[in-house]
Amino acid sequence: MPFELTKSFLADIEEAIENGQPELIRDEIGELHSVDINSILYELNTEQSKYVIDVLDVAVSAEIFKELDEDIRAKFLREFTAAEIASFVDEMDSDDAADILNEQRPNVREEVIRLLKDEEKAAYILDLLRYEEDSAGGLMAKEFIKANINWTANQCIDEIRKQAETVRKVFSVYVVDDRDRLLGRISLKELILCAGSSRVADIYDSELISVDAFQSDEEVARIMSKYDLVAVPVINVQGKLLGRITIDDAVDVMNEQAEIERQLMSGHSEPVESRDTIWTLTRARLPWLIIGMAGGLFAATLIGFYEGQLIAVPAMAFFIPLITATGGNVGIQSSSIIVQSLASDSNFDRGIYHQLVKSILGALINGLAISVLVFGFNLMFTEMAIALVVAISLFGVVLLSSLVGTLTPLLLHRFNVNPALASGPFITTLNDLLGIAVYFGIARILLG
Amino acid sequence: MPFELTKSFLADIEEAIENGQPELIRDEIGELHSVDINSILYELNTEQSKYVIDVLDVAVSAEIFKELDEDIRAKFLREFTAAEIASFVDEMDSDDAADILNEQRPNVREEVIRLLKDEEKAAYILDLLRYEEDSAGGLMAKEFIKANINWTANQCIDEIRKQAETVRKVFSVYVVDDRDRLLGRISLKELILCAGSSRVADIYDSELISVDAFQSDEEVARIMSKYDLVAVPVINVQGKLLGRITIDDAVDVMNEQAEIERQLMSGHSEPVESRDTIWTLTRARLPWLIIGMAGGLFAATLIGFYEGQLIAVPAMAFFIPLITATGGNVGIQSSSIIVQSLASDSNFDRGIYHQLVKSILGALINGLAISVLVFGFNLMFTEMAIALVVAISLFGVVLLSSLVGTLTPLLLHRFNVNPALASGPFITTLNDLLGIAVYFGIARILLG
Repeated sequence: MPFELTKSFLADIEEAIENGQPELIRDEIGELHSVDINSILYELNTEQSKYVIDVLDVAVSAEIFKELDEDIRAKFLREFTAAEIASFVDEMDSDDAADILNEQRPNVREEVIRLLKDEEKAAYILDLLRYEEDSAGGLMAKEFIKANINWTANQCIDEIRKQAETVRKVFSVYVVDDRDRLLGRISLKELILCAGSSRVADIYDSELISVDAFQSDEEVARIMSKYDLVAVPVINVQGKLLGRITIDDAVDVMNEQAEIERQLMSGHSEPVESRDTIWTLTRARLPWLIIGMAGGLFAATLIGFYEGQLIAVPAMAFFIPLITATGGNVGIQSSSIIVQSLASDSNFDRGIYHQLVKSILGALINGLAISVLVFGFNLMFTEMAIALVVAISLFGVVLLSSLVGTLTPLLLHRFNVNPALASGPFITTLNDLLGIAVYFGIARILLG
Repeated sequence: MPFELTKSFLADIEEAIENGQPELIRDEIGELHSVDINSILYELNTEQSKYVIDVLDVAVSAEIFKELDEDIRAKFLREFTAAEIASFVDEMDSDDAADILNEQRPNVREEVIRLLKDEEKAAYILDLLRYEEDSAGGLMAKEFIKANINWTANQCIDEIRKQAETVRKVFSVYVVDDRDRLLGRISLKELILCAGSSRVADIYDSELISVDAFQSDEEVARIMSKYDLVAVPVINVQGKLLGRITIDDAVDVMNEQAEIERQLMSGHSEPVESRDTIWTLTRARLPWLIIGMAGGLFAATLIGFYEGQLIAVPAMAFFIPLITATGGNVGIQSSSIIVQSLASDSNFDRGIYHQLVKSILGALINGLAISVLVFGFNLMFTEMAIALVVAISLFGVVLLSSLVGTLTPLLLHRFNVNPALASGPFITTLNDLLGIAVYFGIARILLG
């Protein structure tokens, strides 16, 4: 059953640190899964955490660092010497090692690599550091099982035995030719069931999905999720097998993507969590609040321009929130669906034109519904003229906001900006202004 | 390399259907991965799709149905007889079969189960249908490899051979006692490397994370993602091994969750995609637009109540969008972080009080920043009195919206409503009203 951190357990650990009882700590948490140990570390300060990491086995510490949140990891690692970091890295898979070294300053990075005991791993890491972090190459590990097409099943098994320490999770054996080009794979199940003398050439499966080292990590995650893969081999342009990406790393990419989308939709300028300090949270929020504020002040200027209108018909002011709220809602509704369709794997794109037509037709229907309802309601309480201005404006605002909501993410995407930006305060601010311009513009025309 | 659907390829397929050339269709798409065939079917109408499915191998069709979007699957399957559906179900794993049967009317479901050739599968499916769809039991498959603790490695391998057809993906062998209680697992790698005569009792790993059949699917996905699992065994309260959940199904759950969150945040009453018809899209949007409209009309009534104020100081109207926009932004910012923290696996909850304090302190800082900025700007353009009313109101709105944004998701969560509801138009509408009440309330006090 999964571990659950309780307050009393945490108090015990804190006391053991306080009293300097390494044995107690090893007994209590040494056997836990690294992610569970991390949930404890998140509640401790840096000094306490350093104490815990120091008393644990180096293999356990390596697992801990592998799973730790990036910013916290960076903070913790500053407390350790290059030699200590090297001892952790020696215990890690190449992909995790490269991730951690990528976060270090260049001089620390080089020092750590120099100090590694495992020379093969050092070479692996140097190779991985060449790739962008958000590419398949940056995501892959160099640890995998490779078999030559001319081998037998028994030779594959020998290879697994030889690499048993290095390659912890084996899902299948990748089959390559003499020039290391990927030909296919053999599942472990197949390897168990076939005769030891079987030739690899006879038992391997040539139907295999691979990714290119320069493909983006998001694309890799999408492909793995789409084709239900637990691991995918990475090749270069010549078809040479370079590495392997496992599903846990792809799941991390998906979670991170979801995180960024949530950040943009909720008006934060950087990804935040409830765990973050007040300062981090406040700093992440202020930029969008200031943009919203600027929009609000601009709106004030815009309405000020129509002050005469307001003095003549004060009731005009009543419906400002209705206009802006409707514009905001429609804008987010329209943009979110475009953002989603841009993020999904619809290779077959019926094009912008089709989306626009759909958006406008939908807006026509909804705009009509809302306008008629509001017109009916207003007839009971306000003058005919105002009821008409509000209804016509609403219709215009729904149409316009839906257009803006559809086009903005498409434009952002074209200019390589994350289109999810258009599902947040950005589009709301824009539509507030448009809504007010439409509302007072129509009022000036109809009310004179 | 992944398949990419082109317009010309689609045109070829449509022509082959038109001209009744089954051979051509089988040649063109028979070898594709089922998800790629589905990307073609999404572009065809029901009649064309039925033609394609009919000409393909029944095993391929089974894969197609397994991967198809739920609503489209329901529509397609209505075109097939119970006997035909049974022939597809016979080719599926029990979990996929149960999913599909859950979508059928009870009489069709029973008819299909009666018509299954594989009696063991029929029993599996009947067993799975007892579980809620969104529970671990509803997610698991009955196909997995099980070994008794008293067996040898060779007996495990024999078992894999016996089940080779039924259990397609094998990651590990689950070890049980004589009463079928889960004791641990043996990885395939271990099984390959150990001697055939090794006793299971000596080589199995007792450190194993399992889930309870009644745990929610979201929790299962969270556990699998957290502990980097590719498969997790499902047990009942007695510890008896019931089934196995693989990571691909957990990834589907995660994607679905992200989908629902996006839906709630973007103001749709049901999950939609750009592929959906205008009618579906419009219908999903109208409810939230109407709620927003009701909020807007309520706001109009509220402002109407202060008409005297507006006539005395028309400039009051200028700042309505600023007030409502700021309230909306702050509300979403605050709620999104609570929603996220409720969805994540923070077992160790510092409690509502801590979150509230943090939210209020952050709001104090941001509220102060925004108010001072706006006050400074307004001093240049409007009267001191109005500048003061706007600044004080803004500060109050930031504070209040942040409080509402923090408390609403917590309340929704307590009453078992998805808290993500609080990150969408719901909170914006609520905060619009609060903002207006604060603004005009403060104006009445200060301006008299």
